[in-house]
Amino acid sequence: MPSVVWQVPGDDRGLAYGDGVFETILVRCGQPFLKYLHLRRLCQGAAALGISCPESFIDAVIQNAVSQQPNRERWVLKLMLTRGSGGRGYRPSDPSHPRLLVSAHEVPPVPHVPVSVGLSAEPVLTGSSMDGYKHLSRLSQVQASRQFRPGLFEMIMPDANGRLVEGTRSNLLMAWDNQWITPPMRSLAVRGVMLDAVISMLRSEGQAVRERPLAPADIVSPRFGGMAIMNSVFGVVPVQKLETIELPQADSIARIASCCFEMDSDLSGNSLP
Amino acid sequence: MPSVVWQVPGDDRGLAYGDGVFETILVRCGQPFLKYLHLRRLCQGAAALGISCPESFIDAVIQNAVSQQPNRERWVLKLMLTRGSGGRGYRPSDPSHPRLLVSAHEVPPVPHVPVSVGLSAEPVLTGSSMDGYKHLSRLSQVQASRQFRPGLFEMIMPDANGRLVEGTRSNLLMAWDNQWITPPMRSLAVRGVMLDAVISMLRSEGQAVRERPLAPADIVSPRFGGMAIMNSVFGVVPVQKLETIELPQADSIARIASCCFEMDSDLSGNSLP
Repeated sequence: MPSVVWQVPGDDRGLAYGDGVFETILVRCGQPFLKYLHLRRLCQGAAALGISCPESFIDAVIQNAVSQQPNRERWVLKLMLTRGSGGRGYRPSDPSHPRLLVSAHEVPPVPHVPVSVGLSAEPVLTGSSMDGYKHLSRLSQVQASRQFRPGLFEMIMPDANGRLVEGTRSNLLMAWDNQWITPPMRSLAVRGVMLDAVISMLRSEGQAVRERPLAPADIVSPRFGGMAIMNSVFGVVPVQKLETIELPQADSIARIASCCFEMDSDLSGNSLP
Repeated sequence: MPSVVWQVPGDDRGLAYGDGVFETILVRCGQPFLKYLHLRRLCQGAAALGISCPESFIDAVIQNAVSQQPNRERWVLKLMLTRGSGGRGYRPSDPSHPRLLVSAHEVPPVPHVPVSVGLSAEPVLTGSSMDGYKHLSRLSQVQASRQFRPGLFEMIMPDANGRLVEGTRSNLLMAWDNQWITPPMRSLAVRGVMLDAVISMLRSEGQAVRERPLAPADIVSPRFGGMAIMNSVFGVVPVQKLETIELPQADSIARIASCCFEMDSDLSGNSLP
């Protein structure tokens, strides 16, 4: 089992090399939102790193953390799982002795919707065995975040070819003709649990969601109906403006933004949807 | 000034996001080898992240650490500089309160030269504003290191096009016709201080060193004279075998391998070479 700790020594590999994974989970009225999807991503990411992540143990840690804040209406639970200490340089020792850090945080301020977003000069780096997982080597997202300007709610990160891929802390969904598009899953640095949940919801309603790269020119196409950004803490948020470009606001975008936290009963239980 | 610490809390950004830089410095008989180059890379990397890194303070920390090990012949000094705690998510607070971790380590075992190396399936990820710096988001190198097999001294990491770029903890130099080639500096995840030192030494002797991508097929070309890998802790090491391919062993490779630690007086002082 991982050791549950509050701090780590200098030789912890999470600190030394970004060698670990994390999740931030919205807790509402004692219920961890989309808990199962968070738990699954955490443990799949850990497995991709070869770090032991006993799901039932992590689940018990979540329940214990939630039970300690009985009267708190909305807060954020953060879990960080590192490989622990050990190994010679980058090469980990086997077996490892993982550490788990658990902390409670305020919910960030609710944005005025629709929001304005910027375009980051810092690209998403993908192509590794860790694509899509929420690992601790997040310096690209930090560098993109340092480009925030006043009034912007998010910075969108491009790939090496300038296509719009994801926000620093969010994924993208676009209305396109009479369907939805989202950048290809294999192009994502972080595959958000909220994106997965929203896609599941839309498909269960019979709506088409297609993966397709989004070139900057696409957002001025007459086929483009608007964009929403999403994560599991702030939900689904319509985008009004990308840099200086006003985006269309399809009704469908407003609709998914308003119902995004209603998926709870279907998706946050103890079993897969 | 950064706080000098031995452990970090769970909200340290080095731990949470790989938000920081580090150096590992070989100390021989009380002299930190290539100190100035390490110090320069650390502070340039910190500057690229917007982290304060007062060079004279770090230099004093190095001298202090070295003075505490007066009778140790060869050891490794590790410095880790994180942005410290603070900020909302990826976006750092301004100003930051950096932390510096200082630790002493054994020198890794000296390899039997020439060595065998493997080819990693894990690619080098570049294209970010942090290319070349020794930052703390090193999960690609960790994943490549997990592919080590018995008898291999290093794993060579390719770029997305399969070209050979660098080792998990070393850079490459190849004999090619009557000159030297090394992969383009802009293609490197980590630009090693030893590579810089060796190139300076070769050029000061009037030898040509050219930057040029290295395709896997190049190592079986008749123009290819052999390969050395290098870092500032193990020096310059000739490569005998890459996976199953026996590499040629130009005399020039053996020569730079034997004289690599002689550059000390020129390059490890307090001023730039």
